[in-house]
Amino acid sequence: MSRFFTKRYSSLVPYVPGEQPNDASYIKLNTNESPYPPSPGVIAAASEEAGKLRLYSDPECAELRGKLSSLYGIKPEQLLMTNGSDEILNFAFMAFGDEDHPLIFPDITYGFYTVYADLNRIPYAEIPLTDDFTIDPNDYIGAGKNIVIANPNAPTGISLPLNVIEEIIKSNPDNVIIIDEAYVDFGGESAAFLIDKYDNLLVTQTFSKSRSMAGARLGFGIGNEKLIADLNAIKYSTNPYNINRMTASAGAAAIKENDYYMENCRKIAETRDLTARKLREMGFKLTDSSANFLFAESDRIDGGALYRELKKRGILVRHFDNERIKNYNRITVGTPEQMDSLIRAVDEILKELS
Amino acid sequence: MSRFFTKRYSSLVPYVPGEQPNDASYIKLNTNESPYPPSPGVIAAASEEAGKLRLYSDPECAELRGKLSSLYGIKPEQLLMTNGSDEILNFAFMAFGDEDHPLIFPDITYGFYTVYADLNRIPYAEIPLTDDFTIDPNDYIGAGKNIVIANPNAPTGISLPLNVIEEIIKSNPDNVIIIDEAYVDFGGESAAFLIDKYDNLLVTQTFSKSRSMAGARLGFGIGNEKLIADLNAIKYSTNPYNINRMTASAGAAAIKENDYYMENCRKIAETRDLTARKLREMGFKLTDSSANFLFAESDRIDGGALYRELKKRGILVRHFDNERIKNYNRITVGTPEQMDSLIRAVDEILKELS
Repeated sequence: MSRFFTKRYSSLVPYVPGEQPNDASYIKLNTNESPYPPSPGVIAAASEEAGKLRLYSDPECAELRGKLSSLYGIKPEQLLMTNGSDEILNFAFMAFGDEDHPLIFPDITYGFYTVYADLNRIPYAEIPLTDDFTIDPNDYIGAGKNIVIANPNAPTGISLPLNVIEEIIKSNPDNVIIIDEAYVDFGGESAAFLIDKYDNLLVTQTFSKSRSMAGARLGFGIGNEKLIADLNAIKYSTNPYNINRMTASAGAAAIKENDYYMENCRKIAETRDLTARKLREMGFKLTDSSANFLFAESDRIDGGALYRELKKRGILVRHFDNERIKNYNRITVGTPEQMDSLIRAVDEILKELS
Repeated sequence: MSRFFTKRYSSLVPYVPGEQPNDASYIKLNTNESPYPPSPGVIAAASEEAGKLRLYSDPECAELRGKLSSLYGIKPEQLLMTNGSDEILNFAFMAFGDEDHPLIFPDITYGFYTVYADLNRIPYAEIPLTDDFTIDPNDYIGAGKNIVIANPNAPTGISLPLNVIEEIIKSNPDNVIIIDEAYVDFGGESAAFLIDKYDNLLVTQTFSKSRSMAGARLGFGIGNEKLIADLNAIKYSTNPYNINRMTASAGAAAIKENDYYMENCRKIAETRDLTARKLREMGFKLTDSSANFLFAESDRIDGGALYRELKKRGILVRHFDNERIKNYNRITVGTPEQMDSLIRAVDEILKELS
């Protein structure tokens, strides 16, 4: 730290991203990327746009917002595009939280919520998940605080039904409820169509997972026009040109080829359920995941040890140090072939133990 | 504004970007883009990377930072890549400014400084430029405040010599001095090589102008390792994957083809000086620009009127409402052909007046 770093931020504990090895020989099941490539139209659109890089991108992302709002049956004014969904989350924390507007979220969830709360000096409470890692809706219904819930949650993969989400939104009319739907396309129910009914709802989503565009950095927020206007005030005060030309163009092309991505999501859900069954047969305990990852532990091997043994065998999964979940690993669902390799490696590791 | 928008930000006055018309028929001399396309290697690299979008980008931008640090003769740890240079500026305002660390900068300069100062609640003073729009170094030498100076300045294009910049840095050893070098490649002297000598210096640059990549969103900061570590703490607490794959790869390719870009800068400087001479011959008063734009006024026509008349004729320039400079227009230097069109249009407009 330099002698100039402001006291405001000097105790920040930054987010630690999953490993991103340059060594492509790993089977990479650690950062919830799609195992399927972007569609041909996406690659073509991004390539064509590369020739136009001398010109600034459109700060309004008009074409992309037009296509995406049509797909979701909303107005373009109910949509804000951001540099990954991390950016829309940070904008939302900035816009709606402060000393007088505290925030609650589960103790086991996306690790960036505590970072954004600290960054924006928002008082927050982490509400413990139940023993089986589910969210108890009663902790949130009528809580009278701003709320952020990942649905499906991460790293558990467990989703809440839409009627419960709606009850949480409805019972906190004077608080902003952020539903982080990064993984919704793999089996959750989106709350997006509730935005006309509740002015306190912000839904965030991303092209990173279900649309195979983690490397393009494209996320978005869906909400009432007024909420979106607030978030736009933040965007135009931080980085109006937050989306580059290639990403905006690739995103628009991905919407045109939406069927390809939804079919990938179906395949991933199928592979997920098959892999879960195999792991359970091997004695693993798993949460009931609606996402593109599994969350698994075994009483036969420590979570950290399994992570390290898999890494030795060229397979990366994600292990968290958090006390409550340190015996678990989060395993991204890859192709059927990659999951076969995982199962074989786990089998080998367990056999060596016995 | 929604009823949820925090008081902290409800009085924000967001930045207003220059017009970005979808209508490509305009001669676009309003946002300081390069008239020359990105080099073939940049287009090829970005296109190739589009096929890999399913994987997250490298949050450390290791390849790009390696190449850029070699070019500048610095260590990779002295470099931070950002989503345009707007992002590094905001990070720097966040990291080094607060209620106890006020900031000073010229009254006529990049419009985002006041926005970032307000956003981060940093007290600031705008120091008037002299009557001929130059910076008086005595306003900054030994000021004992954090300072941000665009060098060359915008929209004036006027640059300060390096020895003056060094005097400002040296005489404020307990304050961070940010030198915004967005336009340095067109004729300014960079302070980048002073970072080993002064731990309070941060230099910011961008690929937007001299490297024809405005639409890719790539900027960077150069400074002492400790300053860069502070800025990295901010980055990893806001958006670790701030640079997408295509942009990172395009940036690395641009460094390999640096000669192409430096030759473009030379051509632009030549076109600038020729255009300035012609405008002066037509009675315009111009500042002495070291940047890729001209800043011009005439007592024969109001600045706003000239902007509107040029727009009618298909030429966009940038007009600012600021009282001190409202008779001026900022005119980006395009190709020689584009500048011929500009001169013809101005000539026509002036003739119609008389």
